[in-house]
Amino acid sequence: MMEISAGKFRGLMRLADAAGRFKMMAIDQRGSLIESLARSSGKPKEQVTFEEIARVKQLVTKTLAPMATAVLTDPVYGYPYSIAYIPGHVGLLLAYEETGYEAVGKSRYTKLIEGWSAWKARAAGADAVKLLLYYHPDADEKARQHQQDLVRRVGQECAELDIPFLLETVGYALDGGGTNTPEYARQKPQIVIRSAREFSKPEYQVDVLKLEFPANLKYCREFQSAPFGKKEVEPVYTLEEVRAYCRELNEAAGVPWVILSAGVDIEEFIENTRLAVEAGANGFLCGRAIWKDAVALYPDEAKLVQALETRARENFRRLNEIAERATPWFEHRRFGGRFNIRLQHQGEEWYRRYQAGVRA
Amino acid sequence: MMEISAGKFRGLMRLADAAGRFKMMAIDQRGSLIESLARSSGKPKEQVTFEEIARVKQLVTKTLAPMATAVLTDPVYGYPYSIAYIPGHVGLLLAYEETGYEAVGKSRYTKLIEGWSAWKARAAGADAVKLLLYYHPDADEKARQHQQDLVRRVGQECAELDIPFLLETVGYALDGGGTNTPEYARQKPQIVIRSAREFSKPEYQVDVLKLEFPANLKYCREFQSAPFGKKEVEPVYTLEEVRAYCRELNEAAGVPWVILSAGVDIEEFIENTRLAVEAGANGFLCGRAIWKDAVALYPDEAKLVQALETRARENFRRLNEIAERATPWFEHRRFGGRFNIRLQHQGEEWYRRYQAGVRA
Repeated sequence: MMEISAGKFRGLMRLADAAGRFKMMAIDQRGSLIESLARSSGKPKEQVTFEEIARVKQLVTKTLAPMATAVLTDPVYGYPYSIAYIPGHVGLLLAYEETGYEAVGKSRYTKLIEGWSAWKARAAGADAVKLLLYYHPDADEKARQHQQDLVRRVGQECAELDIPFLLETVGYALDGGGTNTPEYARQKPQIVIRSAREFSKPEYQVDVLKLEFPANLKYCREFQSAPFGKKEVEPVYTLEEVRAYCRELNEAAGVPWVILSAGVDIEEFIENTRLAVEAGANGFLCGRAIWKDAVALYPDEAKLVQALETRARENFRRLNEIAERATPWFEHRRFGGRFNIRLQHQGEEWYRRYQAGVRA
Repeated sequence: MMEISAGKFRGLMRLADAAGRFKMMAIDQRGSLIESLARSSGKPKEQVTFEEIARVKQLVTKTLAPMATAVLTDPVYGYPYSIAYIPGHVGLLLAYEETGYEAVGKSRYTKLIEGWSAWKARAAGADAVKLLLYYHPDADEKARQHQQDLVRRVGQECAELDIPFLLETVGYALDGGGTNTPEYARQKPQIVIRSAREFSKPEYQVDVLKLEFPANLKYCREFQSAPFGKKEVEPVYTLEEVRAYCRELNEAAGVPWVILSAGVDIEEFIENTRLAVEAGANGFLCGRAIWKDAVALYPDEAKLVQALETRARENFRRLNEIAERATPWFEHRRFGGRFNIRLQHQGEEWYRRYQAGVRA
């Protein structure tokens, strides 16, 4: 028997479909979205306004939220102008981290949004709190400590509120290089796997991990001739090796996990999702792979909306179809099946013994 | 422009369908359910066990929750064994009042469940807090004060949590008589209407009223020959008068309102709902009229479940069909339409200025 507290249980149910599969959309991007809007409207980033960002988020949300089991947005540009467009039957996740990171030496430090809190997220109706954490398992001790402390702190906050905590780990190159190189592709599997292993430790109180694909399919031998493949270089791994990394990641993830798209194109992400689901992922939480091509049409709003209604919806439909084969979250080995889950304090005294959410 | 806070807005959206109509089921009954189980299993009330009550609630929830836009249950017998059967896309309301009432002279006093709180409801994932209040506008000053104070207190608690507050008012006969008499039928319209008017005052911070039908159709001339009509007595009102009471009630309700079934048979409740919706009700929150005939088959669980799957589902389907013509909650004059609603503090500083839910 695996015990689960009331709010975490209800929250996880709110994020998934009736069968327990996560088909979630992210529109909580800030930095990368501002860059995209600047690029497509041919102006410097600094000239992209609050209204423009909020408007694009609103359009994406309005068009695509109905296809998601849950939508992840941010409390700065997203919530205030998009909440009316997230249908009541669709779950809501809210981001807690400040966009980007602070570079300290070769390491990245994550900060929370000042003026925001998990309490506010809960009160505003969120079903889960999301934290994006830049993390490299070989970063210096101080950086790792900082990032781990932050996760522990948010985990504790969410536990007190009894709200699910979704942690997204994103690796980076310690040498300051890009993440689309063969060198990084070689390191990526262990960066993703070791990060998942670290934050599966109970001390962090993470409920769902949002993970990168544990390889770069562009450098996978069998995908080099795909439209997204890098044909001109030596392959870094075979498909069989990639499959093994996916299985290793699934073993490392001690809690339900979903795959993230990190800005790759839809065709590549579809392959990522297929392989992740095959290995045991509980679904996806996908942003840019679904809608980035549409958003690239900004500031032509009519074209943007048309692309959202056609291509982006088709992308979502294809992902949802693949996620039909995902493992339901309650079948993750942490829970061991629907009938193995027991509400914490279940029984005649539940309403008295249930303490989470009580003001300290 | 009508401003609404984030949590209240999201919560109301969670309770209604995409068009803003409430099609909600109640299974938070305690006293009346225990009486029903005792009757049908031929034993004294005191011998009905916790397990039996929780089990019946679980069966009703499992079978019917998927048809509701939201389910109202109680935190004692309902939540701990039923939460797994309320689909994530269906909203959740939790009762706050102790079942029944304390009789003080001719008046009725409502108490809250000891050991429970609106905080716990929020943390456990509720989308709204429900309070059933026995109320007679001509009860003695002290009783009215007590009941009003209670509503104010819960209203304040919900405001701090930014969770919708649904108040159910139920009238009673001050002379201690039944409510199915011609005498009470004559008083009923004004009891219901005046109660709705009282608790629409902003000081109570009620978001949705759950109201009795403002007449007793059994004594309505045009319905006396219906299967539920009282043929043998003088009618108390004509259908035109009943329609006028419904309109008056709609005028009195300063916030969105839903009609409750108060244990009447399904055929009568269907007429109630039809008339209430015609007058402007925003939907229904119905318990016994949907499932009481099925529950009366207890302890024969197989028959009970079969009746839930057939007749009860058919009852629900008929009500949902009528509620298709209900006024969306955001079209209630309090809000004046979807485009007239504005998120409180909407704008660049929303995430900072939003304060509800912050620990005091």
